[in-house]
Amino acid sequence: MNELRVLPVVGVPEVRPGDRLAELLAVAAPDLRDGDVLVVTQKVVSKAEGRLVECRDGDEGARMALVESESVRVLRRSAGRTITETHHGFVCAGAGIDFSNVPCDQAALLPLDPDRSARRIRDGLLAITAKRVAVIISDTFGRPWRRGLADVALGCAGIGALLDLRGTTDEQGRVLHVTQVAVVDELASAAELVMGKAAGVAAAIVRGVDPDWLRESSVRAEIVRRPQEDLFR
Amino acid sequence: MNELRVLPVVGVPEVRPGDRLAELLAVAAPDLRDGDVLVVTQKVVSKAEGRLVECRDGDEGARMALVESESVRVLRRSAGRTITETHHGFVCAGAGIDFSNVPCDQAALLPLDPDRSARRIRDGLLAITAKRVAVIISDTFGRPWRRGLADVALGCAGIGALLDLRGTTDEQGRVLHVTQVAVVDELASAAELVMGKAAGVAAAIVRGVDPDWLRESSVRAEIVRRPQEDLFR
Repeated sequence: MNELRVLPVVGVPEVRPGDRLAELLAVAAPDLRDGDVLVVTQKVVSKAEGRLVECRDGDEGARMALVESESVRVLRRSAGRTITETHHGFVCAGAGIDFSNVPCDQAALLPLDPDRSARRIRDGLLAITAKRVAVIISDTFGRPWRRGLADVALGCAGIGALLDLRGTTDEQGRVLHVTQVAVVDELASAAELVMGKAAGVAAAIVRGVDPDWLRESSVRAEIVRRPQEDLFR
Repeated sequence: MNELRVLPVVGVPEVRPGDRLAELLAVAAPDLRDGDVLVVTQKVVSKAEGRLVECRDGDEGARMALVESESVRVLRRSAGRTITETHHGFVCAGAGIDFSNVPCDQAALLPLDPDRSARRIRDGLLAITAKRVAVIISDTFGRPWRRGLADVALGCAGIGALLDLRGTTDEQGRVLHVTQVAVVDELASAAELVMGKAAGVAAAIVRGVDPDWLRESSVRAEIVRRPQEDLFR
């Protein structure tokens, strides 16, 4: 195993609907290399894709209507927190709708198809820079049982979402039965550490990942757990 | 924000009950620096602390008895998976008991008090190397709603488990309401990326974390969510 480096991408300008994110990222990260993993926060993706809607600050009724329209089911409702399942299959608070770091009286909805968003950025970067990078779209989710938020992957392109170690053996030769590592989530978390929430760093590069991890994949196909195989829904 | 580096610590020998982990780690990581975060996997901590018990490979009844004795409640039971709450308050599969990378016919229980384990390693490293490092004890947990495993922190010393951004403002001046980032979990995940499951890398260094994050803290006090504030228990 080699060293990983996690580098913040500074200088992405304020993103507006219709902006070509790959171009902005290529300018802000001029030293991208083949095999880099570029983690891009959901917010700039949602802005570029025009996923901004009007929602007056403090209008709880409008906020709740938005959350319900972005969800397929409500899992829990309690004291201002609403945990829902989005149409993508993500379970998170408030359907992942974001009211910070967006223009006042607006809200940012999740991208319609974050795996497609990742592929589009990846393809755009290849066209502009001729570098083959992997892309992860990240967002900040809460977790049951543990306080605090952590970044996870909403979408990916060019990197396997799961690293499948089933069938490999441990040092004593015993088969590792259930070990599938959610590397895209761990990469999203690693990237968050150099982003900060208020600092406005919209992306980070993770350099040095095992080239064997780079393959076609998607968060929807590999990470999103089907309701019927889930014990907590 | 600066760059982070994540460096595997190779060459920790097979750990046996009674081994002084800080000494083994100081030898394997001779270039520790002030402000480094050393992430140590639970398994070597459990071994050093003698948390190994007899459990014949394949004896499902003995395995289940162990899981129950390490748990305070069972949350879900389904097709070979048992999700329990441990006496520490961690919710995970099989009480976190581990059967891989331990001697045959043995199982590794979680450390009794992983925050204390982290403090002991931190204090040992300070005594041996005169370097002030933070320590995180990590383990690999599954998650509801998302496939795949990701590393989280079981214990910590010298680093804040949560980074509290409540009260700070976003770029538009709106107050960030509920943003507490579980940086110890994100650091554990980042470290896992250079460890591998079968490779036997027992620790990793994360270098470059914001010095403001370094403070006394504990996973038990800051991360473990009380049952009464939890929506999924």
